[in-house]
Amino acid sequence: MSDMTSHADAPRSPGRPRSTRADEAIIDATLDLLAEGTTVEALSIEAIASRAGVGKATIYRRWPGKDALLRDALSILKGVPPEPAGRSVRDDLVLLLGTVGRNADPRAEKIMPCLLPEVNRTRDRYELYQGVIEPRRARLREVLHRGVRTGELRADLDIELALALLTGPMLIQRVLRWHPELDDTVLPERVVDAVLEGIRAR
Amino acid sequence: MSDMTSHADAPRSPGRPRSTRADEAIIDATLDLLAEGTTVEALSIEAIASRAGVGKATIYRRWPGKDALLRDALSILKGVPPEPAGRSVRDDLVLLLGTVGRNADPRAEKIMPCLLPEVNRTRDRYELYQGVIEPRRARLREVLHRGVRTGELRADLDIELALALLTGPMLIQRVLRWHPELDDTVLPERVVDAVLEGIRAR
Repeated sequence: MSDMTSHADAPRSPGRPRSTRADEAIIDATLDLLAEGTTVEALSIEAIASRAGVGKATIYRRWPGKDALLRDALSILKGVPPEPAGRSVRDDLVLLLGTVGRNADPRAEKIMPCLLPEVNRTRDRYELYQGVIEPRRARLREVLHRGVRTGELRADLDIELALALLTGPMLIQRVLRWHPELDDTVLPERVVDAVLEGIRAR
Repeated sequence: MSDMTSHADAPRSPGRPRSTRADEAIIDATLDLLAEGTTVEALSIEAIASRAGVGKATIYRRWPGKDALLRDALSILKGVPPEPAGRSVRDDLVLLLGTVGRNADPRAEKIMPCLLPEVNRTRDRYELYQGVIEPRRARLREVLHRGVRTGELRADLDIELALALLTGPMLIQRVLRWHPELDDTVLPERVVDAVLEGIRAR
């Protein structure tokens, strides 16, 4: 919620009390509309204001426009990635992969896949989307870089390819649900171990 | 187009000439509506008939209902997977991975990601979707089984996990476009080689 709070804290309207409840209602309305099938293109500040039970001015006091609001709403939807313990690269990867395709908010499952065709249409929206998922990727990347430094991973490791190797199978299983019978709780371990066999220093 | 033709060939209305042009218009209208954002739920035979410029009866003569038409339309959208040469497991995997996230029809990019939340909602739709992507998976699975038999791959290989390890990174890159600067033409080779290092018999 830190992004939202910082917006509310921004001194755009001195004297006005910040309204966390209004912020939450606005974010919630945005996510509700997206989960119900409203496209990013069709999403309007009017519709969000009406759903949230606030005036448009209340939204514009907190966010400069639809895209800024959208970025905050999606970031809150995704949640904050867990903090790895920093001892074993394998264990940290298992921890981080446990959150791939998992979101605290069930609306994510409806919103995220459908966003893709839309966010890929323009450069700005593409960057907005990348910004939303970047915190999770950054954390994985740190663990992989550390693994190279400590010698747990190959010195010539392609970090970006390794990111795709680790997260891709998780998304296939958890978002596309290729194999409903596969035990989801052991999946991160199985993916990490299978990928490590390829990237671990020998 | 073989599914479509076999529908048209089915002796439902003896004496009526089969109309390949009508079949194509119906499939095309279905895909157009989906690509424009019509949900599977909202998709109606009426709307498809109207868009295709045919009567509803023309559709019902060829398909028993919306789901059967949807399955044919999506199968045509996905296209037929390539035939592997059958010499090297590595080369066959590279060939097959080249088609992951690639579809002859540009409407696939808009239709496929958005289908996920909907098809995951009911068992019937989930199975419909799985049926559409199964031919590609089946071909990959055959190559992996062959690799185990020939000793090119580990004897204890988990085929379903290997499928996810191979296709997941391709989808991440080609559908989610994590790294726009990554050279897409060498991606299948790089993914296959990275995954093989983990699953290849030593």
